Amino acid sequence: MKLATLRGHRDGTLLVVSRDLRHAVKARGIADTLLDAIEQWVGVAPRLQTLYEELNDGHAAEVFAFDPAACAAPLPRSPQWCDGSAFLNHGRLMERAFNTAPIPEFDTVPVMYQGASDDFLGPTDDVPLPDEHDGIDFEGEFGVIVDGVPMGSSATDALDHIRLVVQINDWSLRGFGPREMRSGFGFLQAKPSTSFAPIAVTPDELGTKWRDGRVHLRLHVEWNGQWFGQPSGGEMNFGFGELIAHAARTRRLSAGTIIGSGTVSNVDRKAGSACIAERRVIEILDEGQARTAFMRFGDRVRMTARDEDGEVPFGVIDQRVVPAAIASKGEAKP
Amino acid sequence: MKLATLRGHRDGTLLVVSRDLRHAVKARGIADTLLDAIEQWVGVAPRLQTLYEELNDGHAAEVFAFDPAACAAPLPRSPQWCDGSAFLNHGRLMERAFNTAPIPEFDTVPVMYQGASDDFLGPTDDVPLPDEHDGIDFEGEFGVIVDGVPMGSSATDALDHIRLVVQINDWSLRGFGPREMRSGFGFLQAKPSTSFAPIAVTPDELGTKWRDGRVHLRLHVEWNGQWFGQPSGGEMNFGFGELIAHAARTRRLSAGTIIGSGTVSNVDRKAGSACIAERRVIEILDEGQARTAFMRFGDRVRMTARDEDGEVPFGVIDQRVVPAAIASKGEAKP
Repeated sequence: MKLATLRGHRDGTLLVVSRDLRHAVKARGIADTLLDAIEQWVGVAPRLQTLYEELNDGHAAEVFAFDPAACAAPLPRSPQWCDGSAFLNHGRLMERAFNTAPIPEFDTVPVMYQGASDDFLGPTDDVPLPDEHDGIDFEGEFGVIVDGVPMGSSATDALDHIRLVVQINDWSLRGFGPREMRSGFGFLQAKPSTSFAPIAVTPDELGTKWRDGRVHLRLHVEWNGQWFGQPSGGEMNFGFGELIAHAARTRRLSAGTIIGSGTVSNVDRKAGSACIAERRVIEILDEGQARTAFMRFGDRVRMTARDEDGEVPFGVIDQRVVPAAIASKGEAKP
Repeated sequence: MKLATLRGHRDGTLLVVSRDLRHAVKARGIADTLLDAIEQWVGVAPRLQTLYEELNDGHAAEVFAFDPAACAAPLPRSPQWCDGSAFLNHGRLMERAFNTAPIPEFDTVPVMYQGASDDFLGPTDDVPLPDEHDGIDFEGEFGVIVDGVPMGSSATDALDHIRLVVQINDWSLRGFGPREMRSGFGFLQAKPSTSFAPIAVTPDELGTKWRDGRVHLRLHVEWNGQWFGQPSGGEMNFGFGELIAHAARTRRLSAGTIIGSGTVSNVDRKAGSACIAERRVIEILDEGQARTAFMRFGDRVRMTARDEDGEVPFGVIDQRVVPAAIASKGEAKP
């Protein structure tokens, strides 16, 4: 099924969205918010599924037109956000971009950073940032939302805890990255609020595009209306099962934890890139210098995971970068 | 005033605790949870303050004996947990312990990692960990809880957003630290759930012990009943105002964000240490090798911030480390 969250106080209002993304209905009476639903998933999911089928069959009550612009992130805030770097092609290029030492055991042990999860952005929210000289970059990713995962879960067991799949733009400020990586403490100023496509889908909704704990869809990225890349999520070197197990190695994960893939990246350069930094390092390797600058205020980026039939399971992320002072959602919260 | 949280579903139940820590009363009717209170602090705090004064004067209704063992962390989960390393003495010793490269601009720019905030431990909860060969260590710290902080706030303005002060044991698994630092992605497996003393206090409650954005109290640490250290929190090289401003440089902070000091550490070695790793590196420097081993299952650590008059504003953290499988709170959540 397909779920979304209407913007509102704190955790928003849970919506069930029709398969064709045209209609929606509030899940009230079943679960007020997606966080409520994920915390009681086994009991709640069958009732949401019934409502989803009624909606698709035209039998649901109080149906309204689905408006992605009214949506927050599926989880406007989540208990936890852990983002891997599971496309080794991206990681190896970024090592060259940042001129950092090779990551130990990069082929065999996932790397993952803990991100902020208190203030996610919705699919059409302005992206408020302090300074366009900070190296503003997008990062197209896939992610999963899990229910409670016990400490020490295996990668195989972890797959059973994946309840929803999401599409992500993990904004980065490249100017802060090298120093924060060299500190060893990881990304903090380099990672402003992360954005999400409007729809969270159950894995079954993806059909054969969900297998081996990976999303086998191309992520189409456009920057100011220009093609930028369309790498496939199927090329993850670690699947989501392995990423979840990595996160749960020394602690349990609360229901609602989001695990990200890291920037989608393919060895085939014809696929393009899902972030600017990667294109820049390819330019340096191929041509001796980077030609592509980072984003400026007013720039837009659009990301759409799409299959060969034109299906768009997660909807679209389409955002504009703006100075923090004038952002439409940039006030202190709450 | 002094606040605490009774263990229960999700965010627990907010308590107002008497100045002498003997009595408590539920804040129901004012705010159900501490997270509710911090999200509406300006409106809620005066009413909590009135209840606190009634409790201290013996005029409150439905008063009961305060039991720290029934307490969760003041915020059992919080929107965000960012932990600095503001005692440079500790950081410099740890560089030698981990044999890592010097952190760039360590004297002038705070370092800070994003921690998990979905599943904090209360002051007497067992600490469930997977393996006693992971280098189990405690880290005694102070922290602050802020209300909403706008992006780009100055260190001075940030001080006005500090609503509560807390005492923390930021558990560490040293076996994972060096690899995670070298990856540049920061701590994840190295940081299991963080623990908190039962009482969160408003800064005014600390009197002259709160000044310059620092807690001027000694943190007394005992490991299995033996003195381990009593370093003072006043020696922070960056104050909490600077740490908050660092965290808010590229994003706003949601109300309920917790900012930590990093391990309390003093240049005067007679003060002892607030973590084992620091003692070990001092042993290596002084004697050529580390004599002190990390913790074993069954070990206890007790941490108490105490002033010269014996006042214990945050109460006591007193926990036992246990194998994950038998922990009293180690089940998957929720």
